[in-house]
Amino acid sequence: MQPILKVNLSSGECTDYTIPAEWERDYLGAASLAARILYDDLTADLDPLAPEAPLLILTGPLTGTAGPAVGRFVVCGKSPATRLWAESNVGGFFGVELRKAGYDGIWLTGASSSPSYLFLNDGKPELRAADHLWGQDTYEIQESLQTEIGSKSTKVLSIGIAGENKVAFAGLFCDHGRAAGRTGLGAVMGSKKLKAIAVRGTGAIPLARPEAFKGLRTAANRALKADPMTTMLSDLGSAGAADYLDYLGEMPKKYFSAGVLEGSDKISGASVAETILVGKKACHACVIACGRVVDIGDGEKRKGPEYETLVGFGPNLGITDAIFATRMGELCDRYGMDVISASGTLGLAYSLFEQGIISAEDTDGLLLNWGNAEAAEALVHQMARREGFGALLADGSRALGRHFNAEAQAVQVNGLELAYHDPRGASGMALVYATSPRGACHNQSDYFLADIGQVDDSLGLEYFDRHAGAEKAANVARHQDWRTVGNALVLCHFANVPPKTVLDLVNAACGLALDLDDLMRAGERGWNLKRRINLNLGLVGADDHLPDPILQPLNDGGAAGYLIPFDEMLTAYYTARGWDENGIPTPEKLAELGLAGL
Amino acid sequence: MQPILKVNLSSGECTDYTIPAEWERDYLGAASLAARILYDDLTADLDPLAPEAPLLILTGPLTGTAGPAVGRFVVCGKSPATRLWAESNVGGFFGVELRKAGYDGIWLTGASSSPSYLFLNDGKPELRAADHLWGQDTYEIQESLQTEIGSKSTKVLSIGIAGENKVAFAGLFCDHGRAAGRTGLGAVMGSKKLKAIAVRGTGAIPLARPEAFKGLRTAANRALKADPMTTMLSDLGSAGAADYLDYLGEMPKKYFSAGVLEGSDKISGASVAETILVGKKACHACVIACGRVVDIGDGEKRKGPEYETLVGFGPNLGITDAIFATRMGELCDRYGMDVISASGTLGLAYSLFEQGIISAEDTDGLLLNWGNAEAAEALVHQMARREGFGALLADGSRALGRHFNAEAQAVQVNGLELAYHDPRGASGMALVYATSPRGACHNQSDYFLADIGQVDDSLGLEYFDRHAGAEKAANVARHQDWRTVGNALVLCHFANVPPKTVLDLVNAACGLALDLDDLMRAGERGWNLKRRINLNLGLVGADDHLPDPILQPLNDGGAAGYLIPFDEMLTAYYTARGWDENGIPTPEKLAELGLAGL
Repeated sequence: MQPILKVNLSSGECTDYTIPAEWERDYLGAASLAARILYDDLTADLDPLAPEAPLLILTGPLTGTAGPAVGRFVVCGKSPATRLWAESNVGGFFGVELRKAGYDGIWLTGASSSPSYLFLNDGKPELRAADHLWGQDTYEIQESLQTEIGSKSTKVLSIGIAGENKVAFAGLFCDHGRAAGRTGLGAVMGSKKLKAIAVRGTGAIPLARPEAFKGLRTAANRALKADPMTTMLSDLGSAGAADYLDYLGEMPKKYFSAGVLEGSDKISGASVAETILVGKKACHACVIACGRVVDIGDGEKRKGPEYETLVGFGPNLGITDAIFATRMGELCDRYGMDVISASGTLGLAYSLFEQGIISAEDTDGLLLNWGNAEAAEALVHQMARREGFGALLADGSRALGRHFNAEAQAVQVNGLELAYHDPRGASGMALVYATSPRGACHNQSDYFLADIGQVDDSLGLEYFDRHAGAEKAANVARHQDWRTVGNALVLCHFANVPPKTVLDLVNAACGLALDLDDLMRAGERGWNLKRRINLNLGLVGADDHLPDPILQPLNDGGAAGYLIPFDEMLTAYYTARGWDENGIPTPEKLAELGLAGL
Repeated sequence: MQPILKVNLSSGECTDYTIPAEWERDYLGAASLAARILYDDLTADLDPLAPEAPLLILTGPLTGTAGPAVGRFVVCGKSPATRLWAESNVGGFFGVELRKAGYDGIWLTGASSSPSYLFLNDGKPELRAADHLWGQDTYEIQESLQTEIGSKSTKVLSIGIAGENKVAFAGLFCDHGRAAGRTGLGAVMGSKKLKAIAVRGTGAIPLARPEAFKGLRTAANRALKADPMTTMLSDLGSAGAADYLDYLGEMPKKYFSAGVLEGSDKISGASVAETILVGKKACHACVIACGRVVDIGDGEKRKGPEYETLVGFGPNLGITDAIFATRMGELCDRYGMDVISASGTLGLAYSLFEQGIISAEDTDGLLLNWGNAEAAEALVHQMARREGFGALLADGSRALGRHFNAEAQAVQVNGLELAYHDPRGASGMALVYATSPRGACHNQSDYFLADIGQVDDSLGLEYFDRHAGAEKAANVARHQDWRTVGNALVLCHFANVPPKTVLDLVNAACGLALDLDDLMRAGERGWNLKRRINLNLGLVGADDHLPDPILQPLNDGGAAGYLIPFDEMLTAYYTARGWDENGIPTPEKLAELGLAGL
């Protein structure tokens, strides 16, 4: 492995951190490895926005190779939103460039006294003043730095105004709209007064067995190109199955309170493709190209909306306008805010407004009625800038709920808003949201796909009905372990690559001789390590919960009447995990995973 | 194998026909085996509606077992629509009952002098008068015969009024809407004055290695239940992917002349599910249950519309009303007519009306404007009854086109109307439609799925872009061979069962020791045998063509501007098949397949 560039922003000191070789074998890379590296630093009393809080940008052993859909990297630390383990991975090209610049990661500590940016030029780091760049959005800063550095091929990872203002769901962004959106690490970067990292690299991506890897990745890319999920994502983008998810009652409407919304059929990848799509965009070396390029009527080519953006700024607010979602997606990207948490927090505000708990007096006259797109747009600006009523939204839905004595209504887990896959339509998501190490996250397991049959039996995964209960708990755990492997490599979850192929690629890239059990064990190890971190940070078993609105049945739509048998599911899950009745990994389980003593 | 019951309707004589054992190994069953059995009887000068024309109802070695999605059987003969090889397979429960009654098939010859029906009661055949049943629809006849026979478990295969009137696209129907719809064999049955076949059976389905089979089929059913295609078809029915197909420009509109139609998003499985779905219905022992049960507002539980029905009586005619499609589907089922050919012929009429080639004088005042549902409904009645303008439609679109000097505009191949998968959206279908042994058929290869990535590499199948050309020809041939295996077993194409599993099931059911190459070779053998039959019947290479409208580009939608490179594709296809430049299997190819001398 290449070293990690460790930068103390307070002192300006840059050092190389060497990753212990056995950690690569045990944790593979990226999120799992970051958890191991940061383990000792993540303490309960650490303020995520204090200078001493770490922020670790880390690639995986497949990042930047020409393997299938492996352009991603991860950002990790302690979340200001959840005060728990934070990770958020992102595609595009920045991570590739970082490895070509000779580093597998950048580990930031300390804080700059004034705005600055880090320029890493083929192994040479340099901290530069960024006073003149402070206040730019995440699109502008990329062009500014490319001009300043004098190279269009410079890759830029930055925060926007939301990160500068330490919005609880600010993220790190690159390549015009690729987002490490979740868990608020943009606020951490903002607290360090680091506006951006610019990287140029011309080296090779390290591979232990390059010839073997080349043969494997060619075959893997070819097979992936032929996968039905690939063609669908390529043709229709991440909202390709929206029509189906809507039918299943899995697409939330009116902040998770309704199962049916007139016009929700306009919220689909097919509808986007038929109306505004003008092109596609891929991350590094990806054969899928799920990214949408759209023209919303002004002749500009814009990033098209993802599924989460379409729903969050759509049916979630009673709106069914893909062009509006496109505009809000770009606005959030430019401000550097996570679309899920931003729209989720808006959803709570609309819901409380409907109930009279929030009034027009609170909102300076904005009427937060379902379907009011103008009000949502105004509040997106306000929350990023921490202005007006938006200042109350900038700390997320849990804080907003608390302010209005309605915390129980906030559809979030431990401070992270639910993604737009309602567990009442796909019960596996109930466990996923409740037990994910970073709050209600759908990327630590996209089990909603397993709930409609996307299960790989070479991993011992089984299919259970989308409304099955405790019997699927062990399967959910196993699916999480596999996705933890993916988040360590980093392999995009959209890439339906057979596990045996993934294994071969890892062994060729790292020069290892793992088998599939080893790989799954590495996933389980990562999962349990993050659990231990969260327990250290103050998490207790009772925090493995679902918000009240999700434990009520819906009255209409494809999930109408279904009650999630959550308590039985969680008990079965603990058992399957080898955790005690308080959700604490047993000493035996830790020892089995080589985590004894942690 | 069990014998075939051979019934001479002219004399009333019933005999048992024993299938040569080696034919089971070489042809497996159903359609391929029927082609072998009927080979000598199918001659160019045979009138398909003459008494001497054969009609062979045949099951396959998996029919009626508890294997995955294997309730189907086939009806074969010479098509009155195409005057070529005819086969049409169908699900439900009749084929299962037939095998339980001790026969693997029924081979009808001759003709009754007055309406009759055949009652096969656990091995005992009896011809009975049916004068009192003539004129009943295919729903009514089932109840009538169950009452007359005194057993609700009697299974009934019948023709409707369309078959009685020898409509060129009349079919054989069972179980309230399960249709052997294509190629007009209902007219053959009608010409024999045989209204129906009623079967009761209490025997066991023969299996060579029952214990082995049981283990295999349990695992296979379990795996199938977990397949993503299964969950989608189970949740949304055969129109589950309609939204996607629409986007691809594969869903025809206004008789294949338009790529976009306002409101076509209402023509989807999700839309049906969200509006009128009240239940699901499965064929024998099927874990998918793609059949829809709908309530269109009158409190009745009806069969819901398939994809082909939704499109044929929908966008094809400029209509976007799933309830109307439901009603027309039931009307066609009751009359005993194929929905694809019926709606396709209507489409040509609408198109010619738009051009002024057909006028309101021809139609007794009906205005065949796009979107006119009332006119379509009136004509469905007329064509089944051969009344008024409908009498001109009752011989299909080729005949209708000829009548108005516009045969080139009829979207059909050799007398069979195209299914609603426009090859301009999925180019593999160009070869499929042009070379299928029964005209423009989508069930001899549903290559539109391969064109979006549904390819199984264990069969050596590869993925090619949906707009690739000649390079996919060999792949199309291989896909046809595999589907020919499915049509011989009979295995429903909706069941995504791994080829190795299919092989194991066949070997256990038949007591054979085939390998996957043998199985594929059996498919190729069947395909070439049917080719030889068609050549004997007068087919020439130039008949492997596409209708003119399909060789024009569309102006809008997902296939806009695309021209099918048909000539290169066909040349490559002949080469891949081992056929000469006139589309005739070479003596070497025939010898290789054990068909020398045919």
